[in-house]
Amino acid sequence: MLSKSGCPTTMLSIRDALEAVEGRWKLLILFSLSQGPKRFKQIAREVQGITDKTLSKELKSLEANKLIDRKVYDTFPPTVEYSVTSHGLSLEKVLDELHYWGLAHRKEVIGK
Amino acid sequence: MLSKSGCPTTMLSIRDALEAVEGRWKLLILFSLSQGPKRFKQIAREVQGITDKTLSKELKSLEANKLIDRKVYDTFPPTVEYSVTSHGLSLEKVLDELHYWGLAHRKEVIGK
Repeated sequence: MLSKSGCPTTMLSIRDALEAVEGRWKLLILFSLSQGPKRFKQIAREVQGITDKTLSKELKSLEANKLIDRKVYDTFPPTVEYSVTSHGLSLEKVLDELHYWGLAHRKEVIGK
Repeated sequence: MLSKSGCPTTMLSIRDALEAVEGRWKLLILFSLSQGPKRFKQIAREVQGITDKTLSKELKSLEANKLIDRKVYDTFPPTVEYSVTSHGLSLEKVLDELHYWGLAHRKEVIGK
């Protein structure tokens, strides 16, 4: 891919992917939801250090990117649950590659 | 990977990888250099819109991350050439995955 140098479509798609997972929180939220559907307060407890305001913003962004699903149950009071979509799960291969390369990178730069 | 939820080492390595390629310019510079070693002015011409100051900063960051190599030739005046390292080339698989997922993401979210 590095040899199909600078192709605008390639760059665009890579930008899209980087944007979908950027920031400190999105991956942590996805990790938390990968264990199963959760309610707001449960996620807030598991993703340590996140404020309610930020969590709310990040959940909206993840939902807009169709990485997670928000479901409202007709209970009293209403229950809201978040879960990873199949599109969100498809990130797995990307995260794997990032993970392996990140490990090699750490070794290369920091020297083990 | 999404199922080994929230493991700190995993998150760290993914952060490392994301940081190494973040921003608007690093990938474009790597793409430009993937065609062969180049001098500063050549890169500045190919990576459209980048200022000399930013290019200089990004080249230093890429060099610190061992993604590119800087070679000074003993000519008169001295010539400086930049090239992609084997570590920089190892980004290929990561970029491929980001690219494919980004394409699928665009389809999913924007609807083709």
